[in-house]
Amino acid sequence: MDASIPGLNAVVPAGGAGTRLWPLSRSGSPKFLHDLTGSGRTLLQATWDRLRPLTGRNGVLVVTGAVHAGAVADQLPALPARNLLAEPSPKNSMAAIGLAAAVLHGRDPDALLGSFAADHVIAPGPQFAAAVTEAVEAARAGYLATLGIAPTSPSTAFGYIEMGAQLEMTAAASARLAAAFVEKPDAHTAAGWLAGGRHRWNAGMFVARADVLLALLAEQHPALHDGLVRIARAWDSGEREEVLARTWPGLLSIAIDHAIAEPAAAAGRVAMVPADFGWDDVGDWAALHDLLPEADVADGEGAVRVLGDSALVIARDASGVVVPASGRTVAVLGLDDVVVVDTPDALLVTTRERAQEVRAVVEALRLAGRTDLL
Amino acid sequence: MDASIPGLNAVVPAGGAGTRLWPLSRSGSPKFLHDLTGSGRTLLQATWDRLRPLTGRNGVLVVTGAVHAGAVADQLPALPARNLLAEPSPKNSMAAIGLAAAVLHGRDPDALLGSFAADHVIAPGPQFAAAVTEAVEAARAGYLATLGIAPTSPSTAFGYIEMGAQLEMTAAASARLAAAFVEKPDAHTAAGWLAGGRHRWNAGMFVARADVLLALLAEQHPALHDGLVRIARAWDSGEREEVLARTWPGLLSIAIDHAIAEPAAAAGRVAMVPADFGWDDVGDWAALHDLLPEADVADGEGAVRVLGDSALVIARDASGVVVPASGRTVAVLGLDDVVVVDTPDALLVTTRERAQEVRAVVEALRLAGRTDLL
Repeated sequence: MDASIPGLNAVVPAGGAGTRLWPLSRSGSPKFLHDLTGSGRTLLQATWDRLRPLTGRNGVLVVTGAVHAGAVADQLPALPARNLLAEPSPKNSMAAIGLAAAVLHGRDPDALLGSFAADHVIAPGPQFAAAVTEAVEAARAGYLATLGIAPTSPSTAFGYIEMGAQLEMTAAASARLAAAFVEKPDAHTAAGWLAGGRHRWNAGMFVARADVLLALLAEQHPALHDGLVRIARAWDSGEREEVLARTWPGLLSIAIDHAIAEPAAAAGRVAMVPADFGWDDVGDWAALHDLLPEADVADGEGAVRVLGDSALVIARDASGVVVPASGRTVAVLGLDDVVVVDTPDALLVTTRERAQEVRAVVEALRLAGRTDLL
Repeated sequence: MDASIPGLNAVVPAGGAGTRLWPLSRSGSPKFLHDLTGSGRTLLQATWDRLRPLTGRNGVLVVTGAVHAGAVADQLPALPARNLLAEPSPKNSMAAIGLAAAVLHGRDPDALLGSFAADHVIAPGPQFAAAVTEAVEAARAGYLATLGIAPTSPSTAFGYIEMGAQLEMTAAASARLAAAFVEKPDAHTAAGWLAGGRHRWNAGMFVARADVLLALLAEQHPALHDGLVRIARAWDSGEREEVLARTWPGLLSIAIDHAIAEPAAAAGRVAMVPADFGWDDVGDWAALHDLLPEADVADGEGAVRVLGDSALVIARDASGVVVPASGRTVAVLGLDDVVVVDTPDALLVTTRERAQEVRAVVEALRLAGRTDLL
């Protein structure tokens, strides 16, 4: 059965260090390359598994750093080599998605693309495909379309989308205008938005015709647009490396939200499809805990959740999350809401409450010159 | 300067698994073979360093399990081979000390010995030698002498000695009769004893003439006495192994306290020298914490104590004890009174409060058949 959405190309920006998931996530082996749900598939592979059925044949593109291109190719053996776009250096999401849009536009002037991060977790079920289908319809009509995730908590870790008027499109019945993209709020503001029901989480999912996206970029950041188009024209030729080397270093590093989504929303050109699938960006170990099932660990009380081989974990009167990623036995005794992440060269012991501060540990290591651990 | 105590032989029973110090202490590498104070010397070596100056030349004997004899010899290169007594199997402290007494008595009928465990920590200073000197004088007079440690807390982890009348010996001015040896008390009883001032901790230190100790043993457990004497007669001959193999397995396994100290105290034959030196049997990780200095760890608040290389530890807003014994970096964030012990094949995360229960973790591993970790 073909469940694909006609004309959809899926672009997967695979970047981001996942610093708060140290010591599992490292600069050389970032979050998207890891299986963080115990499913047997890495976040990147799960993203592929989710998107591949929705696109036509050869319809998934991955944009990643040159240093990770080999690992991406290894993890996605069915990804065509020409659909793996390697960036010489990180230039944030606008350059990554803009490059993909320009390459796709060069290959097919009518191309339409949806961008979905490589390191988010989305619950299985038909809701994702249904929301993307509506977003594609809105995109076909010329909108920059986005998915707005139903907030399940007053999170201060995400940006939000303020909903505008219903679009009244037959093929995208639930689509609305996006009135505005707003930055991560403080706790008070977030609580108000959650209660108000007019705000949704911005998961960074954008669907647009390639020509629309490039036009928005040309309006807002013409130099970035021109550079990306120049690179894209050379992409499928022998001149790619030369043009990349000349052009890429000077490109503006900016997030797609700031670059085009915010101004487009202000101009009434962004459609938002409300989406109700379970979504998590696995921002830290506390978030990971909530994604894992309760473990049946040896001699345990069942309250510890394990990412990895639970036969390696002994938990007594303990709760939290244990990641035995070095093959060693991990015994946890008498600690609640603890986080233990055991890797071959570094060990982290913290609590779910303090999970956000793991970033500070990584920064301390950086200052101490321990780049081998980053 | 010769600080030795004329005629004193020091016997060091080196046994005990130190289960509550898992995963550092293992059956193959028990507590006494480890440096648990960060001094650079193992507990066994520190015991040697403390006793060697008090004995005559070649005056220290170590009694240990055959499986540990090689490690003991490696750690104590100055220990004469004839003073390393290897037991074929563990038979508790009476057999170990009784064997040493019988061997010493065979070598010198006037021998006098003091027995001091290989895995206790004693504060430096002149108090230890002073107390042993008095105990030797009481032993010369025919008493089974013991040292009574001034209790610093209402501990329920130690046995106690109830003090009796002053002995009025000129050469052992502070010595008293020991009225009784009493088992580990409950918390209420321990508090009462601490307040009453008539009880001292039993640290298992006994000083006696070899003939007196053997006579007490002959009275209480003649079969054990006869077996040990038979073995001792063969010890320095070619028949040692044959006699050991025939006799050792049938010996009674009993602690010296029960075997002779309790009945001797009841008969008014035990002298107790009150001792005021700092003493700890390092029974668990909580005890170890109190022995370690506050660490100056990288980026730390200074409240974490480290056994090992503190350069491997990053502590933020954390207190407790960290043992980085695998060479890996250990980061602890936002936990109070935590215990983290990191070894090459096993990791323990617990709290100082729950340190006694580490034994249960070891038992769980045993039941799970993980003898490789024990």
